[in-house]
Amino acid sequence: MPRFRVVLVNPKIDGNVGAVARVMGNFGFKDLWLVDPCEITDEARKRAKHANYILDDAKVVSSLDDALDSVSMAVGTSGIVSPGEKHFIRIPITAREFASKMGGHEGTVALLFGREDLGLFQEELLRCDLLVHIPTTEAYPVLNLSHAVAVILYELSLLGGDVPSPPEASDIEREKLFEFFADLLDAIDYPDFRREKTEVMFRRLMGRAVPTKWEFYTIMGVLADAADLIREEKENR
Amino acid sequence: MPRFRVVLVNPKIDGNVGAVARVMGNFGFKDLWLVDPCEITDEARKRAKHANYILDDAKVVSSLDDALDSVSMAVGTSGIVSPGEKHFIRIPITAREFASKMGGHEGTVALLFGREDLGLFQEELLRCDLLVHIPTTEAYPVLNLSHAVAVILYELSLLGGDVPSPPEASDIEREKLFEFFADLLDAIDYPDFRREKTEVMFRRLMGRAVPTKWEFYTIMGVLADAADLIREEKENR
Repeated sequence: MPRFRVVLVNPKIDGNVGAVARVMGNFGFKDLWLVDPCEITDEARKRAKHANYILDDAKVVSSLDDALDSVSMAVGTSGIVSPGEKHFIRIPITAREFASKMGGHEGTVALLFGREDLGLFQEELLRCDLLVHIPTTEAYPVLNLSHAVAVILYELSLLGGDVPSPPEASDIEREKLFEFFADLLDAIDYPDFRREKTEVMFRRLMGRAVPTKWEFYTIMGVLADAADLIREEKENR
Repeated sequence: MPRFRVVLVNPKIDGNVGAVARVMGNFGFKDLWLVDPCEITDEARKRAKHANYILDDAKVVSSLDDALDSVSMAVGTSGIVSPGEKHFIRIPITAREFASKMGGHEGTVALLFGREDLGLFQEELLRCDLLVHIPTTEAYPVLNLSHAVAVILYELSLLGGDVPSPPEASDIEREKLFEFFADLLDAIDYPDFRREKTEVMFRRLMGRAVPTKWEFYTIMGVLADAADLIREEKENR
């Protein structure tokens, strides 16, 4: 099982921060990070109830970078899905699929929750390896912040009883894979203006798939072979 | 799919009632009943946000009986489980098991949520056909009211995509079965002092199992045959 870090990005309503702490206590999570938060008032304390120890231990940081320190995977939560739109970057997996994939993961997974009004900004979403979505009605898709946290943590808390998954690739292996992919993009003279989106897409794809060690090596092998062959062919031209 | 009625029994904190309305709107539920509630203040309106229409349409009643009018199944939610204790009446199924069983159910299912401090009273729990539990840590099992509603509705909202279950027994068939069971208790001269608990146990057992029409008739047949044979034997004694 990974260690989970709940990261509230710029929360604005103190009561919500307290309610998040409480539900973390209910579902057995305790690592709370607050990026540039509102003031933690008596209202937050009141709403946290028996989980005030989580508020006491919360790390307050000024930037998302700080909150992602020594994190092996950053997971963004997103209220709105646009399956039809071209911004594939925002296509998320559901909370349930996400939970089902976390069983064999090791390392620290940061769960990012955005502002009550504006959610996570585009540049914050780009930092995420994976986007997770809670299915709602189209009519009213925006959950209260602490409700969103409650549902995600509820799903993750059910993980304990799951059958362990096959060993998953480590962070170093994962980064290696992304290098191999970038190297392949080089080999095929991939156009610069599409490059960032494509790399993020690949990172996300792997984030959604949560492949095993064996699968990582297999993909890496394919990418490396492809890049090598292209280079050889170019040299022999 | 059944129709779901969210019943808050004697809620005391107005903000919670608003938060419940909002999450009902998020997950596509709209039938809210309030039994002897606190005043619905501006705080409730604020927390309900775009789901104020649910507060407007909420039915305010003075007793649980009124809230269970024309309900085919009453489901109690219970924060505390004591698997070891003898009060089998309080042994619930999990929210996930509950949702998985509702797919083929028809009629109106009332979801009962108790007071923030004291939950549902024993006499209210006795009215329930089924108890549902949200797994939490033992250290802090009491969820905020609107968080409990959020998790249950989240689970039920995922039902839509499920494979339809075989046809389920109707309310009349179900009541008939309970009569047959009571008749069997008569036939075996069941001691009066254990009778109520045993009948509730059977009702709960059937509630948890949510049997199909075919299963109901099968059980009913067994009970009826047993009762008949006992009576015949008595007459021939």
